[in-house]
Amino acid sequence: MFTMDKIYHAETVLKDVAHRTELIYAPHINPESEVYLKPENLQRTGSFKVRGAYYKISRLSSAEQAKGVIACSAGNHAQGVAFAAAKRGIPSLICIPEGAPISKIEATKSYGAQVCLVKGVYDDAFQKACELQKESGAVLIHPFNDPDVIAGQGTIGLEILNELPDTDAVIVPVGGGGLISGIAFAVKTLKPDCKVYGVQASGAPGMLKSVENRKVEPLAGVSTFADGIAVKCPGDLTYEFCRKYVDKIVTVTDDETAMAILALIERYKLIAEGAGAVSIAAAMFNKIDIKGKKAVCLLSGGNIDVTILSKVINRGLQKAGRLGELVLKTADRPGQIKEVTAIIADLGANVVSIHHDRSREDISVDACTLSIRMETKDSGHLSEIRQAITKAGYLLIH
Amino acid sequence: MFTMDKIYHAETVLKDVAHRTELIYAPHINPESEVYLKPENLQRTGSFKVRGAYYKISRLSSAEQAKGVIACSAGNHAQGVAFAAAKRGIPSLICIPEGAPISKIEATKSYGAQVCLVKGVYDDAFQKACELQKESGAVLIHPFNDPDVIAGQGTIGLEILNELPDTDAVIVPVGGGGLISGIAFAVKTLKPDCKVYGVQASGAPGMLKSVENRKVEPLAGVSTFADGIAVKCPGDLTYEFCRKYVDKIVTVTDDETAMAILALIERYKLIAEGAGAVSIAAAMFNKIDIKGKKAVCLLSGGNIDVTILSKVINRGLQKAGRLGELVLKTADRPGQIKEVTAIIADLGANVVSIHHDRSREDISVDACTLSIRMETKDSGHLSEIRQAITKAGYLLIH
Repeated sequence: MFTMDKIYHAETVLKDVAHRTELIYAPHINPESEVYLKPENLQRTGSFKVRGAYYKISRLSSAEQAKGVIACSAGNHAQGVAFAAAKRGIPSLICIPEGAPISKIEATKSYGAQVCLVKGVYDDAFQKACELQKESGAVLIHPFNDPDVIAGQGTIGLEILNELPDTDAVIVPVGGGGLISGIAFAVKTLKPDCKVYGVQASGAPGMLKSVENRKVEPLAGVSTFADGIAVKCPGDLTYEFCRKYVDKIVTVTDDETAMAILALIERYKLIAEGAGAVSIAAAMFNKIDIKGKKAVCLLSGGNIDVTILSKVINRGLQKAGRLGELVLKTADRPGQIKEVTAIIADLGANVVSIHHDRSREDISVDACTLSIRMETKDSGHLSEIRQAITKAGYLLIH
Repeated sequence: MFTMDKIYHAETVLKDVAHRTELIYAPHINPESEVYLKPENLQRTGSFKVRGAYYKISRLSSAEQAKGVIACSAGNHAQGVAFAAAKRGIPSLICIPEGAPISKIEATKSYGAQVCLVKGVYDDAFQKACELQKESGAVLIHPFNDPDVIAGQGTIGLEILNELPDTDAVIVPVGGGGLISGIAFAVKTLKPDCKVYGVQASGAPGMLKSVENRKVEPLAGVSTFADGIAVKCPGDLTYEFCRKYVDKIVTVTDDETAMAILALIERYKLIAEGAGAVSIAAAMFNKIDIKGKKAVCLLSGGNIDVTILSKVINRGLQKAGRLGELVLKTADRPGQIKEVTAIIADLGANVVSIHHDRSREDISVDACTLSIRMETKDSGHLSEIRQAITKAGYLLIH
């Protein structure tokens, strides 16, 4: 049976290994409630995963530890296990599907793990990890469906209640469900009136569907840039925790997550990965009723690949109406670009790029297209500019 | 005369206004020394500026405060003054040169300031602020050349010595010199053997030149993306502090600063602006001898415009050899792209984009150019790929 003892024990074991990340007050996330961030992106290895991984490894016998550990992951679990194993002085082998971002592979190696790149997707890498496990006898560390892993993540619940005893709600990202299982168990045991909400990406709502259908069922597929929670099938153990201790699970779209990442960068100077920002997106876009309440959003990790960070920022800017694009038809004669940009400048927008194209085949020979990207204040501002340009006699194609 | 009393007084005044930002251990910045970050990007308004601005305003008489304050800035000083004035319940008017990022203008407004957009550059906006000051009699808050402002920034020195009493060095960004003046005075008074280093952008070395030439001299121009320290002329007051209390001033290039910003994002999940990252760049690239020492790098702010953040990230990746581009000539027949991408995949790089162009005029009619952008491990990895492609018979144009 799972009891609070296990989580308290994990807290003791993790004392000198994991940071006790401090809550950050975040008033801009939702003006009608009092939001705090639990910044596990500032945790060692850049995510909460080190808590569960380290506690799990600490529970293995000396004989087991001597054989080392194996894990399969392209992300935070890989780094968590690699770091934890190194801290315990034991070898680790991590199977990573090829095509994973090089930065994540290098980070995993930097903690001293041996990395095995596997052709194919996650499932192939997991298969390979199981084979290697049989050969070597090393212990396979599951990313979420394990009581020790769950207890390790549960220490976050203790820290939240300790720092903000009168919190009304805790909002937690959900992939496989290990994180929310530990937190929900701790919170509901110690403070039953505190709500615990789960948030999934709308393209990967595995736990939500399982809870709705009252049984664990794999999704046919997942589609979200929040790779840390892009899980096809929740665990049977984590499913039981969610069913019993979680008040509600909601979903957010990738665009909402992108806007949350942008808000965290601009307002709080913090980098969140997609999975880490879904809880903030849920609070920003009122997916949960927290009006007048104190709510803690778990920012579970910050390991976003920088090559996709730029895309996410642009997406967030577009969706917030702060990066506008317009394509218009002009006559092929001098002065047109000047006229259009003057309208834009007068209305207070900043031109980011201009592309002038005389070779498009879908317009007449004497006309050109002019594509302009601009920084705007919001979507109202963008509409105002579009109207002014139309009024000046230009044809907006897009 | 400037004494420690002033800084201690500022500390008391700022107690409930500014955060006491906690040091972050940053072992990856320089493997041969023990580096800590003082994360003033997590400070209210996203930079240290609120300390000096608030303390300055608190020292004004009630009659002066009633008339409000004026400032001129396109960045952190604007937000610091706007926030501080709002906290004191007095009006503020900020002159901002037009063309400043919309996000910064909006942030300044969000703290309740009245914003006056001025045509032209910083100097024009400053001129306008002086005119408006004469009309209204409001107090003009100088961004750095003011003893109260310097005392406010000096509270950072107290916090560093309090949290890490055995630090050997403090490394501080330098623009006009207000920040380093306060910190250097506090550190050298309390712990004379602790070194204080200043860091400027190589394209804006105003204080360094003034100290070298033993008099305050304006630069002809400045060129750096670190807009927070792109200052043409240091103050006469701050010059005196630097001359007396700063051990050495060094410079870093914009590329080094970009790489530091990238390291802060990837390793510490923190957003720094250019000015905020120069101190970290100095430690990363051994501009200062801190081997075997404990050094605190002041991360002075995080207000980087997101639309330029992407460019900075890409620049950092390119300079670190992690984003490679190659352009090669292929014959205009099927199978060539497949061959080239197979070579790249075999060597473990990830293709980010491919552009295939048959219309370039500088190559023969039967040939095409193929531009490929890839994620690579480092510059050695990129060379390896270039060699393999050349060896396979392709002509690299770039």
